[in-house]
Amino acid sequence: MGGVKLVGTRISPYSCRVVWALKLKNIPYEYIEEDLSNKSPFLLQYNPIHKKIPVLVHDGKPICESTIILQYIEEKWPQCPLLPSDPYERAVARFWIKFADDKSPSISKIYRTSGEEQEKAVKETLEMLETMEKHGLNGGKKFFLGDEISMVDMAFGSVAHWLGVIEDVAGLKIFEAKKFPRVNSWIQNFKEVPIIEENLPDREQMFALLKHRREMLLASNAN
Amino acid sequence: MGGVKLVGTRISPYSCRVVWALKLKNIPYEYIEEDLSNKSPFLLQYNPIHKKIPVLVHDGKPICESTIILQYIEEKWPQCPLLPSDPYERAVARFWIKFADDKSPSISKIYRTSGEEQEKAVKETLEMLETMEKHGLNGGKKFFLGDEISMVDMAFGSVAHWLGVIEDVAGLKIFEAKKFPRVNSWIQNFKEVPIIEENLPDREQMFALLKHRREMLLASNAN
Repeated sequence: MGGVKLVGTRISPYSCRVVWALKLKNIPYEYIEEDLSNKSPFLLQYNPIHKKIPVLVHDGKPICESTIILQYIEEKWPQCPLLPSDPYERAVARFWIKFADDKSPSISKIYRTSGEEQEKAVKETLEMLETMEKHGLNGGKKFFLGDEISMVDMAFGSVAHWLGVIEDVAGLKIFEAKKFPRVNSWIQNFKEVPIIEENLPDREQMFALLKHRREMLLASNAN
Repeated sequence: MGGVKLVGTRISPYSCRVVWALKLKNIPYEYIEEDLSNKSPFLLQYNPIHKKIPVLVHDGKPICESTIILQYIEEKWPQCPLLPSDPYERAVARFWIKFADDKSPSISKIYRTSGEEQEKAVKETLEMLETMEKHGLNGGKKFFLGDEISMVDMAFGSVAHWLGVIEDVAGLKIFEAKKFPRVNSWIQNFKEVPIIEENLPDREQMFALLKHRREMLLASNAN
């Protein structure tokens, strides 16, 4: 039971947050791919309340919820810090992490819905992008907190990589570089970080999987 | 602009979380009551993204979102700790704080809605109580993390004090001591802490105000 285990799915932005943090801090871990259509006893034992991935198991003890896992990793392995040391700057970082957690689920709703529900998800996604552009990435910064990647950038991972794939799956164009120039630059900067680039889910595999899921969901709603 | 200012409303459980933390740690502060029906320039300047209370302003710098404010207070003024020092125990504490933040808004939905929407809010509140009973308060603890009050207990403040008033406003009985004996004991323990007891909003004032709000909301929905 010793060591670090991560239970996740390869295409989940929440799992990826944890993978990025572990890799950046150079922490060895065992990865366990979860089948969410047939949840394992391991997942149900370690996250009995939400039954969701990711779960980090460290020396036999489970930690759930990706942003809580990231903070645990940060406190346990302080090398390559992912949060500033100043309490005020940490509060600002936590504000954006919470913002990403509260708002970014609208992105996945875009491929899981249609009609009015989808319109609402698109509207919420655009509002999130506007707030990122106007308030989060102002001042010519490379990343959310300055010159270095942080937990905030990881929290917005689904904007950087998943949104584009989901646009293709839904046959919609939502993100326009001209309208969101700072978000656009940030996406480039984020994806150029070697650990991120090497640990993003494959675009074509994601497309095929999400397209299949969308078709199944729409078919089951139509019945 | 120096010192600590808190912008809030007296009957908000989110504002109360911050009041309890500041009082427990004996931090002097200036309290500014906000009129949410006519938001002040001060609130709009300091929380331009969410335009919500509470906001803590420390030496002119704003911190938004009650659970982020609590963590800021904890890091800035470590006396009377509100989080454990061990990283794993902190992760467990953060899990429950996030759970309270995600689930407890169902309580206020009970007085703001009717019909199917209200039934859903009641169901979600009961599920939250069941999880608190079964997973959060097992093991005969006085508070969520043991013998001392912590940030987790403050996060569940609306269960301890607001739920009962909202039941009366909505004319419903949701919480039963027999069904939730551990939650019931925890409510007594929590309300017996002098700082909590002295800083809970007055029940009758809250009842009158929430009843008036409910009537206004239902009338505007009926039009």
